[in-house]
Amino acid sequence: MIQIEKALQDQVEIISNGSVVSPRGFSAGGLFCGIRRKRLDLGWIYSYVPASAAAVYTTNLFKAAPLKVSKESIDQENRLQGVIVNSGNANACTGERGLKDAYTMRDLYAAQMGIEPHLVAVLSTGVIGEFLPMEKIQAGISRIGSVEQPADVVDFEEAIQTTDTCRKSCAVKITIDGKLVSIGGAAKGSGMIHPNMATMLGFITTDAAIDPASLQQALRQVTNKTFNMITVDGDTSTNDMVLIMANGMAENLTLNPSHKEWPKFINALEIVCRSLAKKIARDGEGASRLVEVTVKGALNDQVAAHVAKEVIGSNLVKTAIFGADPNWGRIICAIGYSKQPIDPEKVTVHIGPIKVVENSLPCGFNEEEAKNYLQQENIHILIELNQADGQATAWGCDLSYDYVRINASYRT
Amino acid sequence: MIQIEKALQDQVEIISNGSVVSPRGFSAGGLFCGIRRKRLDLGWIYSYVPASAAAVYTTNLFKAAPLKVSKESIDQENRLQGVIVNSGNANACTGERGLKDAYTMRDLYAAQMGIEPHLVAVLSTGVIGEFLPMEKIQAGISRIGSVEQPADVVDFEEAIQTTDTCRKSCAVKITIDGKLVSIGGAAKGSGMIHPNMATMLGFITTDAAIDPASLQQALRQVTNKTFNMITVDGDTSTNDMVLIMANGMAENLTLNPSHKEWPKFINALEIVCRSLAKKIARDGEGASRLVEVTVKGALNDQVAAHVAKEVIGSNLVKTAIFGADPNWGRIICAIGYSKQPIDPEKVTVHIGPIKVVENSLPCGFNEEEAKNYLQQENIHILIELNQADGQATAWGCDLSYDYVRINASYRT
Repeated sequence: MIQIEKALQDQVEIISNGSVVSPRGFSAGGLFCGIRRKRLDLGWIYSYVPASAAAVYTTNLFKAAPLKVSKESIDQENRLQGVIVNSGNANACTGERGLKDAYTMRDLYAAQMGIEPHLVAVLSTGVIGEFLPMEKIQAGISRIGSVEQPADVVDFEEAIQTTDTCRKSCAVKITIDGKLVSIGGAAKGSGMIHPNMATMLGFITTDAAIDPASLQQALRQVTNKTFNMITVDGDTSTNDMVLIMANGMAENLTLNPSHKEWPKFINALEIVCRSLAKKIARDGEGASRLVEVTVKGALNDQVAAHVAKEVIGSNLVKTAIFGADPNWGRIICAIGYSKQPIDPEKVTVHIGPIKVVENSLPCGFNEEEAKNYLQQENIHILIELNQADGQATAWGCDLSYDYVRINASYRT
Repeated sequence: MIQIEKALQDQVEIISNGSVVSPRGFSAGGLFCGIRRKRLDLGWIYSYVPASAAAVYTTNLFKAAPLKVSKESIDQENRLQGVIVNSGNANACTGERGLKDAYTMRDLYAAQMGIEPHLVAVLSTGVIGEFLPMEKIQAGISRIGSVEQPADVVDFEEAIQTTDTCRKSCAVKITIDGKLVSIGGAAKGSGMIHPNMATMLGFITTDAAIDPASLQQALRQVTNKTFNMITVDGDTSTNDMVLIMANGMAENLTLNPSHKEWPKFINALEIVCRSLAKKIARDGEGASRLVEVTVKGALNDQVAAHVAKEVIGSNLVKTAIFGADPNWGRIICAIGYSKQPIDPEKVTVHIGPIKVVENSLPCGFNEEEAKNYLQQENIHILIELNQADGQATAWGCDLSYDYVRINASYRT
């Protein structure tokens, strides 16, 4: 098993400075249209040819208008050629008018690019409950593709941000049927992050040829192990969405689960999504550290995932890590209230290389060494339940003064 | 229905400066035995006669040793005559030795008071994973009842505290069968508060005569509407416990659900528990405000309770309140991810007297007025789901810089 994974890893090459335009046939850009005060706020991705498309959406009952419109676009023939996205305004809780605005935004971009509206997805992120400033958006869209507005993927990555402090992108390449296949991605997200089915905004592009149903299956499978395993604050947004476009320009034989190189594709997609997910967790609002919690030895993978997310989501664990306090008691406590079938006598916990709990009892450890470890930027916590083979990894961040500062004053 | 509730309320009198010793036949005290650095750390309650007893315990899988011992005591004949409790050390995750220590602590107090060990409950609160300093506890217990250590309920209320910033007590009186019946209570709790069955430490005394099974039923019923409806940080502790002792010295006819004045007793007990629960929420670590969320119009009371607790537990709602930001979008978002059967088109939200959302859409409101309201010490949020008659109220607090400060440095 480990050997197979190792072999798959070896077949993937990370593209340095890779992005959503690393795969053939995609362009992306961003501009300032005036929704935010100063920063870029309107972005787009365009594929030269219609691409197979799939998406996963938030489980929040209050789904924002753009999600409904994007879902309608994708459901029509499972293809997309363009994506238009704004930051600064989520177009959520905006009723009929919000829905109309989302359609208009989609149609304006489709007209600008000369493609069918149902080949366009529309996404929004930002403040909830305010109407989109449609005149500004219309003026912005009309500038896309003009000489003054050359497509630059860095502008796209900036235009999708809200409280993010950095751009988040990544790309890899593999060969399928002897053809070079690339997968690229971009994401935004920093607060209100605790996805449950989809998550924040994620954009994946690939030049692989793949049928839409297989693409949806691949995205779902990989999202569950990556984007859905991060949490910043336990809140699942109204606007979370991850979408993928596969334009087939690599000219491989059409991928599906029977294709002998399917596992290689899935693995490469997982690397891209995991990389983006970790970047989102590390950029959690106010975060000073990336925290990775791995649970092994659970009754099954689902149990492991629940326990890992409960620990990574605990405010008390997060504040302890912020304070570089090896407070394993809070880790044990979070495992204990995860409502999972674990054996409370058998738990082992490592903080980095330091074993702090064995058989659910504290083991003598060097407090100073543990404190030093917790001052690093990447913290790893390993929890062994010692029952069976289930495992999972979740990512999150510490809870700092800055989280409170950012969220006590975000809107006003 | 409202008239009945009103009539019940009118029959209850709040005892000014009431406490666990307001009911006849109880004494309580506290002292410093050296577990904490300076503050009182050993407390006790004693009933002159054995009392009917009942308790509810944490749902955390890692139950602390004292809970196991207390449960064994109570299960033996559903009676208690004394309670011994320490702060500064939770005696949790301490294995066989911790269990032995909890038995020893119980036996020492029983011997000191000349009563049977199984009539004693033992509770601990504080740091997880360290062994109790038994010599200090033994020395402390040996001073209980001495001339130098007169019983003072204020000392008890102080001795049970950890990061609490104030004592929490309350008592009421009613008449049952023409006899004066009092119910008193004390509680501690400030962090790791998100109870699920029992909660933090709560101590209720009454001189009512009541059979143990009815007492257990009353405690369960009332706890679910009070202590189990508060949350500070979503963490359910290993040591949460609420216990009640009823010594019968009021000489009423033995209470049970068939007694015509049973609703009056339940109502009085609920007033005591709600008062303590609200004091705990208000004293949440770092809290500057008490937040009350009422949900009405749900399909049933359970749905209402889930929604209320999801909203009160949202870090984003809590930080918005800390910042006096009427960010109703975060309230809507939390309602939306509560996974309850609500109608996403029908929600109305009030922040204090100000309607901010109607039919799930924002209504124009005076931002300045809402900001001013949120600067008060007691915040009330009303959510109307407009589906049926289910309702519930939950209590919590805002999330401040001080929460992070306290929890980034609690242990070390």
